[in-house]
Order: sequence, then C-alpha cells, then structure tokens
Amino acid sequence: MTVTRAECVALDAADPLGRFRDLFHLPAGMIYMDGNSMGAQPLQTRARMRAIVEEEWPEHLVTGWLADNWMDSPRRCGDLVAQLVGAAVGEVVIADSTSVCLFKLLSAALQLRPDRNVILTDTANFPTDLYVAQGLVAASAGGVSLRIVPTEQIPEALTDDVAVLMLTHVDYRTAFMHDMDAVTKAAHAAGALMLWDLSHSTGAVEVDLGRAGADLAVGCGYKYLNGGPGAPAFLYIAAQHQEHMQNVIAGWLGHASPFTFEQTYAPAPGIARMVSGSPPVMAIVALQSAVEVTLDAGMSALRRKSVELTDLFIALVDELCEGTGAEIASPRNSALRGSHVAVRHEYGYGVVRAMAERGVIGDFRDPDIARFAMTPLYTSYADVFDAVAHLAAVLHAGEHLDPAHRVRNAIT
Amino acid sequence: MTVTRAECVALDAADPLGRFRDLFHLPAGMIYMDGNSMGAQPLQTRARMRAIVEEEWPEHLVTGWLADNWMDSPRRCGDLVAQLVGAAVGEVVIADSTSVCLFKLLSAALQLRPDRNVILTDTANFPTDLYVAQGLVAASAGGVSLRIVPTEQIPEALTDDVAVLMLTHVDYRTAFMHDMDAVTKAAHAAGALMLWDLSHSTGAVEVDLGRAGADLAVGCGYKYLNGGPGAPAFLYIAAQHQEHMQNVIAGWLGHASPFTFEQTYAPAPGIARMVSGSPPVMAIVALQSAVEVTLDAGMSALRRKSVELTDLFIALVDELCEGTGAEIASPRNSALRGSHVAVRHEYGYGVVRAMAERGVIGDFRDPDIARFAMTPLYTSYADVFDAVAHLAAVLHAGEHLDPAHRVRNAIT
Repeated sequence: MTVTRAECVALDAADPLGRFRDLFHLPAGMIYMDGNSMGAQPLQTRARMRAIVEEEWPEHLVTGWLADNWMDSPRRCGDLVAQLVGAAVGEVVIADSTSVCLFKLLSAALQLRPDRNVILTDTANFPTDLYVAQGLVAASAGGVSLRIVPTEQIPEALTDDVAVLMLTHVDYRTAFMHDMDAVTKAAHAAGALMLWDLSHSTGAVEVDLGRAGADLAVGCGYKYLNGGPGAPAFLYIAAQHQEHMQNVIAGWLGHASPFTFEQTYAPAPGIARMVSGSPPVMAIVALQSAVEVTLDAGMSALRRKSVELTDLFIALVDELCEGTGAEIASPRNSALRGSHVAVRHEYGYGVVRAMAERGVIGDFRDPDIARFAMTPLYTSYADVFDAVAHLAAVLHAGEHLDPAHRVRNAIT
Repeated sequence: MTVTRAECVALDAADPLGRFRDLFHLPAGMIYMDGNSMGAQPLQTRARMRAIVEEEWPEHLVTGWLADNWMDSPRRCGDLVAQLVGAAVGEVVIADSTSVCLFKLLSAALQLRPDRNVILTDTANFPTDLYVAQGLVAASAGGVSLRIVPTEQIPEALTDDVAVLMLTHVDYRTAFMHDMDAVTKAAHAAGALMLWDLSHSTGAVEVDLGRAGADLAVGCGYKYLNGGPGAPAFLYIAAQHQEHMQNVIAGWLGHASPFTFEQTYAPAPGIARMVSGSPPVMAIVALQSAVEVTLDAGMSALRRKSVELTDLFIALVDELCEGTGAEIASPRNSALRGSHVAVRHEYGYGVVRAMAERGVIGDFRDPDIARFAMTPLYTSYADVFDAVAHLAAVLHAGEHLDPAHRVRNAIT
C-alpha cells in the first residue's frame, strides 16, 4: 500500500498547517473537496459579519463610510490579496464579479494597444472568459476580434495584431497550470499584453505577477479565497500601466474627487479608478476575513502541502482504482498542476453523485470529469485517504451506475 | 405655531405606518434623516444574515447554490422590487452596482437604436450617470455622443438622433421629481428609448414603469430600499425589449445554459441575460429582507406619509427659521418632490455639522444644500418636529458658524 490511513493521521499530527483546519467550519460527517468551486468558511468570518451587520451598519449608518472606513475597503482588501499574488501595494483592488472585472481589463487593454485588435486565448479557457471577450467583440461591430486556439498553438498565434493574450492560469477542468513566467515573456516578445485569470490559482498555488512581469489579472473571491457565495472579485494592473488605462465603466467611486459631484469624469490616480459604483461593503468584510487566514498560513507552505495532498490523491487512485475505468486527467507532474485533481470516468457524473451520498463532496464537469480539490488550509491527509477509499468503494461496488444518478443536476 | 410637538406625537400615535418604525434599528439619541443616502437596518435583516452566514454557507457550502436557491436570488429579489416600481414579474433583476447596471442598459439601448447615436440627459442628473455615459462615449471613439442640457430644454433636445433619454427621476440635491409619464411619452414621440434612474425614487415615491411605458430603469439598493452599505442595484427592461437586448458584459450566469460550459455565448431568455457573474448572495439576502418590509407597508401608504412629513418639514422651516438665511430649495408642490427636503444656506456645510453634533443626521451637497430625508418607514412626525427645532436652534445660535465646521468632510 502506498500509505496507510494511520500514516495519514500521523502526517496530519505533524503538519505545521494542521492548526488552520480548526479555524474553519467544516460540516460534520462531510469530506469537502469542492473548495475550488466554493470555499469553506473561516470561523472569524462570523465574528466579522456580526460586527458589520449588528453594529457598524445599524449604529453608524451613513457615517460608517468614513468612521469604519468602508470607502477604502476595496483597496485595503486588495492590498492583502496583492500579497498572495506577488503584486505590490496599490496594484490590486476588489470590485464587481470576475466577469465584470475581466470586461474592464480587456477593454482597457484594447485601449492601450490601439494599433492591435485581437484578443488571443486558448480553447481550455474558462467559458465565462470567452463569453466576456465575445461580448466585447459583438459590441465593437468589427473593431475587435477574438482568436481561440488550442493551448499548444499559442506561440504561432501570437502575431503582431494581438493586443492581449488572456489565459486562465490553472485549468478549471484538468488543473493544468501554465508556466506564467514563460508565457508572459512570449506575449511580451510579440508586443502583446498578458492578462491572467487567477480564479483557480489565488490561494491555491504560488503566483508572482511581479516576477512574471504580468500586465493584468483578475481572480475570484469565493473559490480558494473562501470569501463566501458570490464574493466580489479582484483585479490587478501593473503599476506602470495604471495611469494609461481607463475604466470603461466610469463610475463615481473611480472619480478623482467623488464627493465634489462634478459633471465631468476624471479618473482617480492609480488602481482606484477601476472601481465603478459603491463597494459591496459586507461582502468585502467577509472576503477580507478569509484572505487574512490564507496570508497567515503563507502561500509557500500552502503550496507545499497542496502538492503533497494532490500527489497522495493521485498515488492512491492509481493503486486503489485500478481496473475501474477511472484515470487521472490532471498532470502527473505537480509543477504543471494546480490544487485539484481531475478523475476521468465514463460515468463521471454518477461517480460524483455516489461519492456525495457517502459524504464526499466533489463536482462534475462535462463530459466526464470528476473534480476533487485539495485545499491545504482545511483538507487533511486523512481526508485524502478517506476520499479515495470512498471513490474506490463506489467504483468497485458499481454505485456510480445507480440509475438515480443519470439525471444531471447542474452544479455538483 | 404650525403644529406643536404634542400634536406630532399624536400624529405618530394615530399613524397606520407607525408600527414599522419598530421593525428598524435606530441608534439611540439619533434623529436619522439621511436614509436617502443610506437606509436604516430592518431588524429582520439580522436574522436573515445569521441564517446565511452561520448556517447556509458554512453547512451547505457549494450545494447551497441549489439547496438554498442562491442561484435564483437575483430574479427572486428582482421580482419583489418589481412590485415597488410597477414592473411585471421577470422585468427586474438584481445585479452589480447602479453604475455597472447603467453601463449595461445604455450599451443595450444604443444597440437597439443602431440608426441613432446620442445619449440625452440633463445637467441635474446624478454625476455617476453622466460619468458612465462619458465612459461609453470615450470607448466608442466617436461613435456615440452625449448631450447634456438644462432640464427645461429636454423637449427641443429630443431630436431624431437621440437613441435614449436618460434621467434621474428624483433629483439628488433638490428632490425635484420628473413627471415620468409625460417625459416618457415625449421621448417615445421623438423615437427615443426612455431610461430612468430610480435611485432616489424606489421605496420613496410611487413609481409605475408599466403605466409610463418606460423602456429601461436602474436603481440603488442601499438608499430608500435599506439594503445595507454597498447593496447591489437593480435593473429593469420592459418585457417587449428583452429578447432584442444584449448584455455587453456577457458572463456565464447570463448564459442560456451556464452549467454546460459551452465555448460560445448564448443569452439566457429574458431578463436573466443581464446578469454577468455569480450573484452576490449575502448582499441579496440583506436587500431582500429589507425590500419585504417596504412591500409590507405598501408604496401608496408610504408616499402619503412621505408627503405629510415633507410638507410638515417645509412648513416648520418657514416658520421657525425665518430670517436665518435658510430657504427651501425643494419644490413646494409635493407632486414635484421626492422624499427629502433640501435647505439652501450659505453655510450649509456648517449647518449639517452643527446638526450632527445635536444628533440630527442629514448631509451636505455642494455648494450650499443641506439635505434631510423623510423615510416614512421609520421617520416619525415628532422626528420632523425635533429636527427642525434643532435646525432653528443651530441657526439662531450661530452654531453653524463654528470654525471647526469649515473643513469639509466628504460624506456627511
């Protein structure tokens, strides 16, 4: 046997990150392996939410914008997220949703490269990234075009009409991870800007936007950042571009002087211009409370544990699920892999449903991918052992073939 | 004397809406008259927030999207807001911020009138509405232009190149209220679409978008709707336009089939296409909890009380503040007025600060407007009496001239 359960329990006992699991609420009897879709809740989030919902808002009312510094919350929380992705102070702000942030950054990138009109991306990109680009293309009435190529064809597709190369750093299905430094360098060599979608990266893998020289990035607040359902997103603009980029959704909170109520828009200095409307204060409180926990653990320690957990998961699947039709769809080289493992199986949906009935929550992605995330803040080695043991039991007993699992439920 | 305090107390005792005040948290010792900027908190919001923060999110995790119906929250809450503005089921959705919603609707309006290229508005419009239009104009590189005229010049400015007339229904400074039916009719007669910003109207005055035949509308969630700091906004599209309008920020949640992860965007039927990213679930829970209270009171009863309160405020200012330099800047005809009263005074900022020191919270808008909102859900007749008594005392004692009130604090 690769490893015994007792050995996993021993690994947990010796784990320097083990104490972080106790800082999260984990439902009794559940092995949660869907933190790549929506993260678990840090206990301190409750206290913070009680403070804003039961004290700040009701007692301070409108004065809270200054007294409780709600107004600065997008940049304050952004500066914390910056530390997770290798950005500097003032390069990240919390705003809107990932889709809206992406729209803002693509629009700004096209303005910054007025002599180019192509958005380049790959077929593996997350669909909403493609949709946002398609919406921009449709609105441009022929001015902008979208080029979608298989990942391996990116080098030759980086022609001199490409304004921006937009890629999702970690693939939402397979967890394949691009080489951020090399790809960014290739984009720059072709004269294009580089935009990274870090939705499946932030809080899961080490990211150094500064070292890579990345121009633009967006990321999701409710996956590995644990900000809660529908948490706002973040966007990053490298400092040297900020004064040259405009927010196409020019709103009052991105104005240089929001409270003088001037009739003409003038952008605020720096990243603040990328905010449009009033910040979602309560949602940012929840997000910040969670980001602090990740910062406290530290990304290099988290990444180290994530690699161990995903390596362990893969080794156990190889051993326990042999001959069941399950195969690893994620890269076996951890340097090319994010923090979840994709298991391909003809009846993948049934596998996920049967696992859920056993209390192991993963999720399914068309056509045949069962995804299991290892979230090093709260996933234990024993969780990994137990999850694969359940997977093997499901497959060997044929529970995934239960006709009740034929009708697909959209999300899990 | 117009009215005595004892008579105001008697009016409160007889007020059929009086019981609603007890459904809100109002800070001890404070007379809150800034609900037009940020509303007070309904008590039931706390219970709802505890349910989502302390039960649904932590216990259900990703399954909550379906188990707790988070996914439908934008439309569910939108259908409730629809009842407040004379819209039908399926014509309103909760999304983003007012600025982002406005951007989406202006973009869609321009698509719907491809032979026209002017956005028409008035100089009295809220600055963020102007900024959003300016951002669109800048991005269009000459394709779209913005025409800003004084309100009284709108009729002659409605030329045959106007794609959309965008107005804020109730002026944020003076509370002047447009005649929605007549203005909408004039826009249509000129072949333009009509877009109303209802930020200072919803929950404050009766609005009947359906009767007016309005095409498009947006509104704010945290003013008279009491949804909390930075609550999401709502947008309305008349049913007959929905299938012809595209969301320029084409995101996955507005896709016809969000969970099949197709590579090509296809809009969802109806208003659902106007959603872009994942909904801000917790913020929508707070907003919905507050909208329900407003619905329970009913807009016609609320409007009736609002008119009585603002009429009373004006009569008391006329009587008690004579000779102090304060004058009413809001329309005296209640049919032309929203739910706040603007008092113009050379030292308006000092007035607001001195009032705040006495526990009466209003706010200031450049250059000389002190605003006081009557929010009929929780403002009492005695509040109005006391507020004006404090205003008169401040002015007669010269408290507004205190040098400490010379340095302006942006928000209150």
